[in-house]
Amino acid sequence: MIRFFNGKVLKFKHTGPRLTNEEVWVDGDKIVYVGHRREDMPHFDREIDLMGDVLMPGFKNAHTHSAMTFLRSYADDMPLQSWLFDKVFPHEARLTGPDIYVLSKLAIMEYLTSGITASFDMYFFNDEYVRANIDCGFRTVLCGSVAQHDSNPYKMEDEYIKFNDFHPLISYKLGYHAEYTLGDKLVDYVAGLAKKYHAPVFAHNSETLSEVSGSVERRGLTPTKFAEANGFFDYGGGGFHCVHMTDDDLAVFKRHGLWAVTNPASNAKLASGIAPLQRMIDADVNMAIGTDGPASNNALDMFREMYMATALQKLRESDPAVLPAEKVLEMACVGSARAMGLDNCDGIAPQKQADLIVINLRRPNMQPPHNIVKNIVYAGSKENVRLTMVAGKILYENGEFFIGEKAEDIYASAAKAAKRLTKPL
Amino acid sequence: MIRFFNGKVLKFKHTGPRLTNEEVWVDGDKIVYVGHRREDMPHFDREIDLMGDVLMPGFKNAHTHSAMTFLRSYADDMPLQSWLFDKVFPHEARLTGPDIYVLSKLAIMEYLTSGITASFDMYFFNDEYVRANIDCGFRTVLCGSVAQHDSNPYKMEDEYIKFNDFHPLISYKLGYHAEYTLGDKLVDYVAGLAKKYHAPVFAHNSETLSEVSGSVERRGLTPTKFAEANGFFDYGGGGFHCVHMTDDDLAVFKRHGLWAVTNPASNAKLASGIAPLQRMIDADVNMAIGTDGPASNNALDMFREMYMATALQKLRESDPAVLPAEKVLEMACVGSARAMGLDNCDGIAPQKQADLIVINLRRPNMQPPHNIVKNIVYAGSKENVRLTMVAGKILYENGEFFIGEKAEDIYASAAKAAKRLTKPL
Repeated sequence: MIRFFNGKVLKFKHTGPRLTNEEVWVDGDKIVYVGHRREDMPHFDREIDLMGDVLMPGFKNAHTHSAMTFLRSYADDMPLQSWLFDKVFPHEARLTGPDIYVLSKLAIMEYLTSGITASFDMYFFNDEYVRANIDCGFRTVLCGSVAQHDSNPYKMEDEYIKFNDFHPLISYKLGYHAEYTLGDKLVDYVAGLAKKYHAPVFAHNSETLSEVSGSVERRGLTPTKFAEANGFFDYGGGGFHCVHMTDDDLAVFKRHGLWAVTNPASNAKLASGIAPLQRMIDADVNMAIGTDGPASNNALDMFREMYMATALQKLRESDPAVLPAEKVLEMACVGSARAMGLDNCDGIAPQKQADLIVINLRRPNMQPPHNIVKNIVYAGSKENVRLTMVAGKILYENGEFFIGEKAEDIYASAAKAAKRLTKPL
Repeated sequence: MIRFFNGKVLKFKHTGPRLTNEEVWVDGDKIVYVGHRREDMPHFDREIDLMGDVLMPGFKNAHTHSAMTFLRSYADDMPLQSWLFDKVFPHEARLTGPDIYVLSKLAIMEYLTSGITASFDMYFFNDEYVRANIDCGFRTVLCGSVAQHDSNPYKMEDEYIKFNDFHPLISYKLGYHAEYTLGDKLVDYVAGLAKKYHAPVFAHNSETLSEVSGSVERRGLTPTKFAEANGFFDYGGGGFHCVHMTDDDLAVFKRHGLWAVTNPASNAKLASGIAPLQRMIDADVNMAIGTDGPASNNALDMFREMYMATALQKLRESDPAVLPAEKVLEMACVGSARAMGLDNCDGIAPQKQADLIVINLRRPNMQPPHNIVKNIVYAGSKENVRLTMVAGKILYENGEFFIGEKAEDIYASAAKAAKRLTKPL
């Protein structure tokens, strides 16, 4: 059993985030006690003195392509089409399972440095990806990526069954890559699985203007309306990016309780646009946040992502009052967890999973302590992440990783793979 | 003498940043040798094994109000006018010299964590501000802030003379707060000093649309044209923010060799807009970058600032190819130094000031090492700052501060001051 004491505990109430002076006990993979110091103290294997720091639920990264670490800083500052068709697709074609294993581990390390305790990942070679997460002790939700260019797009049902009954850290959601890669033949397959399993469906959705106009041309409908019309959203789900959304699209999201997962840094760096987050709030849409993959972001940094989300929204609406810090923090900790089906990881309460982080307040960027939540969202950085715990295990503490393999060995293997994968074509 | 070896050295060439495998020796406050390992090695007081990390010139923060740390996270997510008139101005009125001393020290600490080795600061109580910098060993350039509401706006000439001959770490540039606070009476004063000392002049410039339209209404000229018409720019200088610039304004900047200092995070968070950085590049305008003060940003983080600058510009121009990483890094290290008159701090070469930082590449966000410059700009964070040296002295290393006073004591004093200053009015 692990005891966290002598600090602040961040809880999300209906009225927003609140700090308490309680302590938290963790047993196995669960939180077992949240409250004040008791007379009858059990035996603890470790007692962690928070020294005034904040214990809070970990951030959940609700959209990423982890293994794309091999393309980080390989193709930036170039037009979107040449980025995708000259730099991303041809090199991705060389990926093997062992590449995915080590490249995903590199991403998991960065998640840990940023206080991220779970990811919602859409990519290839899911067996090796899952093994990387289990070997590190990290939590992940896989997302199906049905697409017409896939050599076996019909593997999703097998994966859905397999990975939802595989390991406590692993789960799987139905998904397709995007409207523009789904073709016609696979529409019934996706719709059929949603219906058969009463399951939510996720996809890239309205990331760029050309994606939306292409969908309207091909289907006579926006990507959102296309998905609804085919029954993909009958049991919930959501969209990644959601940058270019009509009022009708937002009504669809509201109607089906869908999750809009925003990726502000990637959308800015690729010049895709600024998602209408305040309009989403006004339309009562469920909201989550993610980094997207390291090829487009290029960091996997929830602090920067939260800042970008709120700062860009203030720009978009020409109003510094929109999308306050509290809402963004709630998106990162609670919204993203629920989008991913991780309702048992969304807060600090007995019986919740112990997916916890400690934010070091004893750094200049967290001072003075007028408002700790706003400090975290508006001034926080990776340097403030003192500890990251997933399912009750400490995977990162004081800059060191406890993931079963040495950091330098992962860097070396990832660099070797990245070099081979990006050799001139 | 200090030796840095076994790493990479980042130099700025006309063609952009380049990495070499040289070593660097520092003696006193200067770099004395940059080159390959030699047979005739002198005695070193300390030899720092870079372990493959990057030694580079420090970032220079070309616009800030350091002591505004007392307002960090005190007034966010609110309209600009109530922010300024209800939260900033009334509480600033309570500031005393001792407040400025400790609040500035808190800012200096954060600069060090972010690899910033000098600041260009505009604020009050310059005696105490200067003392904070000297006591920490930090470098700063003060900027005059002539304004009609100042009880003694005519102190600038005395300060200019005094602080330009005060201490090697301190210098002073002529400046006024902004067109909208200068009034009519002080115009000749500022112009007279520029002429008398053949000195550049700086000011807040075209930060908001209403500032520009107000200037046009009052003066019949934009803030830039107003400054030019009155001879403020006869000996150079520049503007902070420069968000809303006409083509004519940019021509003024080009004609006088002025520096446009961009503050992208503050401009976004306050919903002021996105400065036209690519248009400035196309117009051959000198460019620098700064964080603005912690009341509006809220971090003093050059990594986030660089990322915001390039990501927002890509959004603004709907083109992911504009304002590449190399240009932003050059702005932060070289452009900002030259804007501040710190030409002797702008790079790694013999006889330059030893204002140096070490970037830790052995972290997940710096891997794989396809392109170290793009990694730094697009994925770097405070966690990568291993060491910050100003004028040959190590002020920050491995998370610890060496600034003559304990970190926790500065936090406590700053928190106490902030609490008193922000008591209900």
